[in-house]
Amino acid sequence: MFSRDEVQLPGGIATPALVVDLDAFEGNVARMAAAARAGGFALRPHGKTHKSADVAARQLAAGAIGLSVATLGEAEAFARAGVDDLFIAYPLWLDDGKAGRLRLLAETVALRVGVDSAEAARRLGAAVRGSARPVEALVEVDCGCRRTGVQPAAAGAVAAAAAGAGLAVAGVFTFPGHGYGHDPAARERAARDEERALAEAVDALARHGLEARVVSGGSTPTAGQWRPGVVGELRPGVYVFNDAIQLGIGTCGPEDLALAAAATVVSVPAPDRFVLDAGSKVLGADRSPWVDGHGYLPMFPGATVTGLWEHHAVVRLPAGVRGPGLGAVVTVAPNHVCSAVNLVDELLAVRRGAVVERWPVSARGANA
Amino acid sequence: MFSRDEVQLPGGIATPALVVDLDAFEGNVARMAAAARAGGFALRPHGKTHKSADVAARQLAAGAIGLSVATLGEAEAFARAGVDDLFIAYPLWLDDGKAGRLRLLAETVALRVGVDSAEAARRLGAAVRGSARPVEALVEVDCGCRRTGVQPAAAGAVAAAAAGAGLAVAGVFTFPGHGYGHDPAARERAARDEERALAEAVDALARHGLEARVVSGGSTPTAGQWRPGVVGELRPGVYVFNDAIQLGIGTCGPEDLALAAAATVVSVPAPDRFVLDAGSKVLGADRSPWVDGHGYLPMFPGATVTGLWEHHAVVRLPAGVRGPGLGAVVTVAPNHVCSAVNLVDELLAVRRGAVVERWPVSARGANA
Repeated sequence: MFSRDEVQLPGGIATPALVVDLDAFEGNVARMAAAARAGGFALRPHGKTHKSADVAARQLAAGAIGLSVATLGEAEAFARAGVDDLFIAYPLWLDDGKAGRLRLLAETVALRVGVDSAEAARRLGAAVRGSARPVEALVEVDCGCRRTGVQPAAAGAVAAAAAGAGLAVAGVFTFPGHGYGHDPAARERAARDEERALAEAVDALARHGLEARVVSGGSTPTAGQWRPGVVGELRPGVYVFNDAIQLGIGTCGPEDLALAAAATVVSVPAPDRFVLDAGSKVLGADRSPWVDGHGYLPMFPGATVTGLWEHHAVVRLPAGVRGPGLGAVVTVAPNHVCSAVNLVDELLAVRRGAVVERWPVSARGANA
Repeated sequence: MFSRDEVQLPGGIATPALVVDLDAFEGNVARMAAAARAGGFALRPHGKTHKSADVAARQLAAGAIGLSVATLGEAEAFARAGVDDLFIAYPLWLDDGKAGRLRLLAETVALRVGVDSAEAARRLGAAVRGSARPVEALVEVDCGCRRTGVQPAAAGAVAAAAAGAGLAVAGVFTFPGHGYGHDPAARERAARDEERALAEAVDALARHGLEARVVSGGSTPTAGQWRPGVVGELRPGVYVFNDAIQLGIGTCGPEDLALAAAATVVSVPAPDRFVLDAGSKVLGADRSPWVDGHGYLPMFPGATVTGLWEHHAVVRLPAGVRGPGLGAVVTVAPNHVCSAVNLVDELLAVRRGAVVERWPVSARGANA
């Protein structure tokens, strides 16, 4: 992306800014939709990656059945933008304020919420009791990531508690977050872990007389390992833009990078080094064992961002490569695109070097 | 901070949220002001840490002569809030848009701008030519951080170019960023590097017939190593809140941590582990060799945040320590406070467990 053309920023747009390569973006949206369709999966992309109503609209137009989100605030933002089928793929804990907000939200959209404890399920049930539309609960199970979620065998008890609290138990979900890595075999193992855990959880629900209609999993790194059978719904997020981590683990190529910071060379302290005005406050500070440094420069594929401060990216060039001069505008794909998007108020959508649309990051900062 | 009292969040405030312990904050502001006064230094705190007009007002009331900022956007935000003496401690590269904005800003506040190249100095001079108020240039020198800045001996040529471009050359500045570390001796060496580099740069200006009235340096980690002589002005930032990195390198104690994320326990997947709803989108993703994990929990000093996702902090407890239950609200100091503040729209100022003020993060996201 952006490897042939310099980015031309129109007057009034200053660097650093996040730009989207529309051609790459559209390719990413179409390919994931086609892969899900080919495997018979329902696609429910994760909105935390983009937090943008404009991006959501394109995913839905390409066949997504709804969106996944991580927070109540994200769900509210997408509901305001007209997305009417939302899954909060997170074990929400409802205090009085969130209980009231969730109830309001449930009256306007088809809503699913994650639970991984009987206590949270009871709070959720109390919050939506008597609501005109049912709220569906999905029990989160841990398939090896060791984050949230119960062990698969315990999913039945949580589901029973949710049913007892008056919720419609729709099924189970998991996140194969341990599938990040260089090695396709490790990603394959994570995808199989996911299937085993979900299948076991489906059985656990059945033992409590509950049917798991929805069996939800998936992530961008494990996309190549999906196979029909256990999993019915997929929730990849990052694929829509990709990033330096996906490039590092080999799940995308440089041509699939659809988002980058446009940045200006502000200093050239030595011939083998230049400094950009894009730092951690626009790229994010995520590190990864699969990326050498703090981002990827499509125009200088051998370069490394060796140092990242809040407003400085120090870039080192390979021997013999001539760097850009002072004032040049270059692009840097962030290590983790979800973090970068959350740092700005808008994305600039670019086609053939020109900004053609501006997309507000409607759910920026919606952590709560 | 927050070690004795649970944080009581008033209705309508949901977790995760960033809270400021006013007692600790006021202590930090007063101690740094006293240290600067005792050494005869002018104090120009860095506003990038807090991005808040309310915090700036307290620093100025305690004796700060003005603020340092990192971007033109931050300068504009603080100028709108009434701060009338600003130093953009960054080698700005002015395109047409930024040139126009800088000129407007220069007409309303006393303004200093960093330069580290003759080319940038010429652009700056052209931007403010004929302005009613002079803009002062400070030449940035590198004292060992290897980020931006010219080598000290080259400062004279950049200063001469700035003078030739019609700018008022006020002096020199540097950032001893290589002074981060456990070892007080390493911080001491960085402070001495800083003095040597600045003294050499002052001489370099003198050889071009230019007087360095302003000699600016300093950072929070090197605060204990300041001594009168070469450096006249100090620009620490983080001290106002402190963070887990400062705690890790030993430049503050737990009682000096004045900012934390208030977070809810959303999952307790195992007896030695709990999961909070504060992730990298409110704490930031900065890592440090001086912090084991992703933050510090004042209420559980032996705990480690072993995993951080966008909306999950996985906390491991030492053997035998009883963790908080589902729904408990606890606090986490971020690794790097500047990153955390930039992720939210307001800070909640807390005294004796109650929120008593709400401070907008006026310059949030002002990267350009």
